[in-house]
Amino acid sequence: VIACIQRNLNIIDISHNISPQNIAAGRFCLMNAYPYFPRGTVYVAVVDPGVGSQRRGVAVQFEEGYLVGPDNGLFSGVLSLSKAIAAVELINTNYWRIPQPSSTFHGRDIFAPVGAHLASGVSLEKLGTFIDPDSLVKLPLQPVAITANNITGYIQYIDYFGNIITNISGDLLKNKNWSIIINNQKIKKALTYSEVNQGELVSLIGSHGWLEIAVNGGNAQEKLQVNWSYKVNLLLHDSI
Amino acid sequence: VIACIQRNLNIIDISHNISPQNIAAGRFCLMNAYPYFPRGTVYVAVVDPGVGSQRRGVAVQFEEGYLVGPDNGLFSGVLSLSKAIAAVELINTNYWRIPQPSSTFHGRDIFAPVGAHLASGVSLEKLGTFIDPDSLVKLPLQPVAITANNITGYIQYIDYFGNIITNISGDLLKNKNWSIIINNQKIKKALTYSEVNQGELVSLIGSHGWLEIAVNGGNAQEKLQVNWSYKVNLLLHDSI
Amino acid sequence: VIACIQRNLNIIDISHNISPQNIAAGRFCLMNAYPYFPRGTVYVAVVDPGVGSQRRGVAVQFEEGYLVGPDNGLFSGVLSLSKAIAAVELINTNYWRIPQPSSTFHGRDIFAPVGAHLASGVSLEKLGTFIDPDSLVKLPLQPVAITANNITGYIQYIDYFGNIITNISGDLLKNKNWSIIINNQKIKKALTYSEVNQGELVSLIGSHGWLEIAVNGGNAQEKLQVNWSYKVNLLLHDSI
Repeated sequence: VIACIQRNLNIIDISHNISPQNIAAGRFCLMNAYPYFPRGTVYVAVVDPGVGSQRRGVAVQFEEGYLVGPDNGLFSGVLSLSKAIAAVELINTNYWRIPQPSSTFHGRDIFAPVGAHLASGVSLEKLGTFIDPDSLVKLPLQPVAITANNITGYIQYIDYFGNIITNISGDLLKNKNWSIIINNQKIKKALTYSEVNQGELVSLIGSHGWLEIAVNGGNAQEKLQVNWSYKVNLLLHDSI
Repeated sequence: VIACIQRNLNIIDISHNISPQNIAAGRFCLMNAYPYFPRGTVYVAVVDPGVGSQRRGVAVQFEEGYLVGPDNGLFSGVLSLSKAIAAVELINTNYWRIPQPSSTFHGRDIFAPVGAHLASGVSLEKLGTFIDPDSLVKLPLQPVAITANNITGYIQYIDYFGNIITNISGDLLKNKNWSIIINNQKIKKALTYSEVNQGELVSLIGSHGWLEIAVNGGNAQEKLQVNWSYKVNLLLHDSI
Repeated sequence: VIACIQRNLNIIDISHNISPQNIAAGRFCLMNAYPYFPRGTVYVAVVDPGVGSQRRGVAVQFEEGYLVGPDNGLFSGVLSLSKAIAAVELINTNYWRIPQPSSTFHGRDIFAPVGAHLASGVSLEKLGTFIDPDSLVKLPLQPVAITANNITGYIQYIDYFGNIITNISGDLLKNKNWSIIINNQKIKKALTYSEVNQGELVSLIGSHGWLEIAVNGGNAQEKLQVNWSYKVNLLLHDSI
């Protein structure tokens, strides 16, 4: 659909492996990829269980580029990283594939063509009516609780390797020592996976900046038998 | 292999997730993607359980573009959408990667290079000898039975989300009301997934134009425990 | 990350489906793809269980192109096909994404940017210090034992279709007849999958040049219940 509008656009597939209807996983994946693309990138992202219902389709402008997709919380990770300059609700059917889109596949009929037009130089205001960026849907995340010696958070993502990414930010842990309690297992801090023996659990600040739990040469999710939203306790030790 | 022949071709990967040897799934996937590509596209498609046997390798010309691959029914979906202008059996080894191709990987040694040459401007007649397009293999599909109050069809595809796509065309259902009986469950009609509660079954005309059975926020195949070729009964109600 | 350095590079994704930490699978996959790319290709390959430890990051120059990635045996398949002209250890942080890379994601922070710079014309010597190509890590492979009537080898790869690829080279089997014994099953030789009945086991020289065990229209791994490193016995019969 994009190539039909503009053949020479450079298309990069971030992922087609988000589990169905999992807006939270899509939100994390997009937030995590966002900082590594060239300035001016148009990101088309669609995890869209409410397709065809009353949820809005939107395009959002940032200093770094544009987001296009459903307004259902999928963009709230990027919105936590960067400030939206402007946003429109997509109602101008001139930039859709067809004026009467399928009620189940807006990725094909609305978001991909709108993204292609944006990337080809069409200006944001032509795509619809301006809306307040503050009105964009935020995905409700489980709260992180912080005391002097303790941080309680939750699993926000599990990657292809079975590494567990919590919603505890690495910024909270600079120059700190800690251990983790999850599913009755105690896990120590390290800097790299290979700091522990093969098959052993380890916790570290991952490449994404969040507290991560992994197994050296293995799969932490399988070993711990935990899943999305599972609780994670972190005990702070003396500072380094 | 394509880049070795012509570096600047724009390659789009429709899918590498067709289940092994499943010509019927490849046929549906290709038919469903075909209308959305730019004019002049060369489609190289390989689901090829008979590789190395006597099945023909072919290139087929349409007004919209070209198909290249094995003549085993994989192209019969596209042939039901559009009329073939001409077809050749691929016998000119000058356009293969090597004159003596592997007997198990014609995708690499014949179809990809032939596709690259076609996309680079080589004319169809140079690739082999003309054959009658009507002689191309049609995949035998299960017949749809239609009476005044009833349509009986079959599952022709199950997508990544577990949505069940039947071989009952949406064209038969315009301005009609219906309900579905499948595996002893009765399912009502809707326009979008979210018209029913989370976890409930729904039937609608999918974005591909076929009658589809889905679960709002869930996986219809898992819920119904059905598979390819399973029978689907549709009861027609009073027209709208 | 690559597009941020040079937008117009042509990126081809060989695979993102190597099983986690499986250097041997990555080695085979890369060796098997290597001969089919255009001259001058830069291959960035990362299967990297030792990321952040003392293993070196390297770039290796061949007549055909460059390899970039961890020095952990991943490149030893390509090194068995082609002679390295020169190699450097990657220590010049000017060509990394950031001078202080993540300790768990060198693919993003070191290898992808170095590959992009190489493909943009930066010369090998700028990337680090020269090392002896003979010092590059070789993955220890299980030895193939050959007698007058017998060859014993091992499974080195299992593909998407469940086809079993042994480490017995087809070069050992030219103009020979054979049968295979694996997991107490005897399997005969053929030239193509479809030479045996649907569902039957067959052995042949695969498109990659190695002895392969397959099921016509089926999955040999599931049928034989074997896995990586499993032993394979080949009985040589009278020559053809």
